[in-house]
Amino acid sequence: MKFVRFLRDGRDVWGIVDGDTVVEVRGSIFGDVRPTAVHEPLERVRLLAPVVPSKIIGVGLNYRDHAAETHQPVPTEPLLFLKAPSAIVGPEDPIVLPFADHEVHPEAELAFVIKRRAKNVTRQDAFQYILGYTCANDVSDRTIQNPQKARSQAKSLDTFAPLGPVLVTDLDPTNLNVQCLVNGKVRQSSNTGQLVFDVPTLVAHISSLMTLFPGDVVLTGTPSGIGPIYPGDVVEVCVAGIGTLRNPVRAA
Amino acid sequence: MKFVRFLRDGRDVWGIVDGDTVVEVRGSIFGDVRPTAVHEPLERVRLLAPVVPSKIIGVGLNYRDHAAETHQPVPTEPLLFLKAPSAIVGPEDPIVLPFADHEVHPEAELAFVIKRRAKNVTRQDAFQYILGYTCANDVSDRTIQNPQKARSQAKSLDTFAPLGPVLVTDLDPTNLNVQCLVNGKVRQSSNTGQLVFDVPTLVAHISSLMTLFPGDVVLTGTPSGIGPIYPGDVVEVCVAGIGTLRNPVRAA
Repeated sequence: MKFVRFLRDGRDVWGIVDGDTVVEVRGSIFGDVRPTAVHEPLERVRLLAPVVPSKIIGVGLNYRDHAAETHQPVPTEPLLFLKAPSAIVGPEDPIVLPFADHEVHPEAELAFVIKRRAKNVTRQDAFQYILGYTCANDVSDRTIQNPQKARSQAKSLDTFAPLGPVLVTDLDPTNLNVQCLVNGKVRQSSNTGQLVFDVPTLVAHISSLMTLFPGDVVLTGTPSGIGPIYPGDVVEVCVAGIGTLRNPVRAA
Repeated sequence: MKFVRFLRDGRDVWGIVDGDTVVEVRGSIFGDVRPTAVHEPLERVRLLAPVVPSKIIGVGLNYRDHAAETHQPVPTEPLLFLKAPSAIVGPEDPIVLPFADHEVHPEAELAFVIKRRAKNVTRQDAFQYILGYTCANDVSDRTIQNPQKARSQAKSLDTFAPLGPVLVTDLDPTNLNVQCLVNGKVRQSSNTGQLVFDVPTLVAHISSLMTLFPGDVVLTGTPSGIGPIYPGDVVEVCVAGIGTLRNPVRAA
């Protein structure tokens, strides 16, 4: 199933993608949904980020090649940070760079969305707590991040958390190509098989520290190939089986 | 005005403290409230954390003496991190230590609560965006925090964000004594006059990076005197003009 959230008559509603059509649904994507009679062409709806989380958790240095390119050791346990929910934008929304003299990098990532309250979940049970997967761009202001390792601050600027376009429930996350394209040119290209800590390990580790709630989002980390973006650029995050999350870049 | 949030018949409701009494109110503390006929003795109500924020922002190393004791330079700009809202507990709730072999420290702090949507607010206008003040304990797992400066992770464990007991709206935050007591013995003692970045500077700086929403909480930083806590301890954060936030400590 592919869930979307979209604007209809000024309200945000849930839908299911069926081919080129979005069928509006009622109910909760965390429980049961039932289709309505409202059908819209997918290309005509204004998609929003597919979830509204109470928190977004990121995982630092979770691909070996990215740790290497930033001259940092591969962590022996998942290295977590938070992104402010106020940073979330949807597909096609601009990534706004507030400081002209700061270096800002996009980061292509597979994200997973929590289905039910999770605390001290085992690796074995982890998939029962995941609703599905989406693409994430973990936009990062390196000028803020690097001097003090202020990851959460550098990654929480408004518009620095694009999510979407869809939330896919039936997906095996163990072998998915993850790419970042800037202006159509591939900059990052890897596969979730290269994750240092895989999805069930992340669910187990994170839920041993903090309670996860339905809709909470975990960004699984980014591979090598980071580099700056500038106003006028277009960034695409592509994850196999999900689709492409596309965002233009502009100055404040 | 002193606002509280408390449990009544299983629901969480707002109230105003009037001497030894809590008067339940209807409406929004961010707009207008009107008193109801429900009066309860303050000592008999189960207080909750006074707000439910969409995000909690912390400020690292915002007292010179605390930066010195941790052998870190005083930041030239506010050093921000996030605490997960899932970490919030109220007065008298236990701080639960999940790992017996980790070193965990309480941190006494003045917290302020945002009144209205704030983006690019000036220092001059900052107080118009603040609803009030409360006590915060920025509980920190140093075993997680120190190796990688993983502040947000170390400070987001469940129960690691006690807030309360009351939210005080009429308070000048420039000259308030801030203390931490463990088992009745003073461990931290300073004054908000010693803040490196004062409250209006924090509002201006943070709102230049990310949009603040009604109820969002900013922890202004902790003074020197940090040290470990253990199961069986009782921690009190006292801020002049607000009161005492008291939490027992226990093992998981």
